Amino acid sequence: MAETKGCMIVQMSGDFDKVFAGFTLASAAAAAGMPTTIFFTFWGIKAIQNGNLTGKGLMGRMVGLMNRGGLERLGPSKFNFGGIGRWMFKKMMASKGVAGLQELRQACIDLGVKFYACKASMDVMEIGREHLIPEVLDVVGAAKAMKDADAASVQYFI
Amino acid sequence: MAETKGCMIVQMSGDFDKVFAGFTLASAAAAAGMPTTIFFTFWGIKAIQNGNLTGKGLMGRMVGLMNRGGLERLGPSKFNFGGIGRWMFKKMMASKGVAGLQELRQACIDLGVKFYACKASMDVMEIGREHLIPEVLDVVGAAKAMKDADAASVQYFI
Amino acid sequence: MAETKGCMIVQMSGDFDKVFAGFTLASAAAAAGMPTTIFFTFWGIKAIQNGNLTGKGLMGRMVGLMNRGGLERLGPSKFNFGGIGRWMFKKMMASKGVAGLQELRQACIDLGVKFYACKASMDVMEIGREHLIPEVLDVVGAAKAMKDADAASVQYFI
Repeated sequence: MAETKGCMIVQMSGDFDKVFAGFTLASAAAAAGMPTTIFFTFWGIKAIQNGNLTGKGLMGRMVGLMNRGGLERLGPSKFNFGGIGRWMFKKMMASKGVAGLQELRQACIDLGVKFYACKASMDVMEIGREHLIPEVLDVVGAAKAMKDADAASVQYFI
Repeated sequence: MAETKGCMIVQMSGDFDKVFAGFTLASAAAAAGMPTTIFFTFWGIKAIQNGNLTGKGLMGRMVGLMNRGGLERLGPSKFNFGGIGRWMFKKMMASKGVAGLQELRQACIDLGVKFYACKASMDVMEIGREHLIPEVLDVVGAAKAMKDADAASVQYFI
Repeated sequence: MAETKGCMIVQMSGDFDKVFAGFTLASAAAAAGMPTTIFFTFWGIKAIQNGNLTGKGLMGRMVGLMNRGGLERLGPSKFNFGGIGRWMFKKMMASKGVAGLQELRQACIDLGVKFYACKASMDVMEIGREHLIPEVLDVVGAAKAMKDADAASVQYFI
């Protein structure tokens, strides 16, 4: 992989399993020496927020209500059953020694994966920069995301 | 990006948010000078149809029933709540000055994004060429989609 | 496409329509002469299992219960309605002469598409190598998947 131009992931889903997949692929890419970027957009923003999504306006508060709890409260895309699916997945992963979302995100950060947040999504959901974890490098538009994607060897939309 | 070979998106989802993501990434790519193509397949076909999906046979009519309303009636992949999710998203986007789906699709067209529709999907869902917006260049198979993808720098499956 | 470096698909979804899309794109790529690989992970594992997901422990059995039936029992990502969606899709595809999942998977195998299964997913879901179809070449980690992706021209996350 001497010629790698890196990996660029658009993380749109905020489902537990798909955030898990995004962080796993990103950390694997970074560990293999590929410069790696994740562009968090729409529901994916949840994976890099500090606590809840809570905009000041009515709309922001409604989105906040529907998205309570941050990284540790994300449910899987299938079989959530009011939290049982998440509980079971965590239980299974822990019993198998698989890393949790917090650990995986930290592994990405430690391996130098670059985190960007989508400006339009944050505007619409009324999330401010202060609601994101400090490791997010910048809040950028889709043009920046496409430029990064164009420069990379591998692109995924998750 | 002098060396870009363009962007090729397979748009399978017909969810409001994912169609929004597809048109946003495509228009950003095209605006950045990347030759851009969207291959609409399965539920994604809805984003380029004129009005409803209504095949002549029983099956086509059943699909039509489940997919009434065209581009302006697409619900998001999460939190639709019988249309409230769509209403809220539109409201939030409008209040933030973010373009709607019709505008985004038009922006793609104006920027020269090429639209193709998947032949197998149209056959199965009993949708004819006449049910698609005239800007769709052609109805093609997966082989054409893969050829376009192979020639592009960036590929996304949405 | 003399310069193609091939196609690499991460198949995470186990939904009928998305497995269908994965096999269709993979077979189209392989038929066009592109070396093609599918890395099955999470719910996508279902597309290459022999019969049911049934781990020995409690967790494995719970996942098994939620995933009964193998390739022929997969429901679509939308409009399943307790099986009616799947039935309708199969009916429509059969009446249009479109291949079913078993045929599509066999076409991939016949065209030389390489199948790999995700080790972490199999550990968590308590699925053993013996539960997969013999055509799966190996059970590997995300690092191998990223290496294959990096070497390919086209990458999709489905």
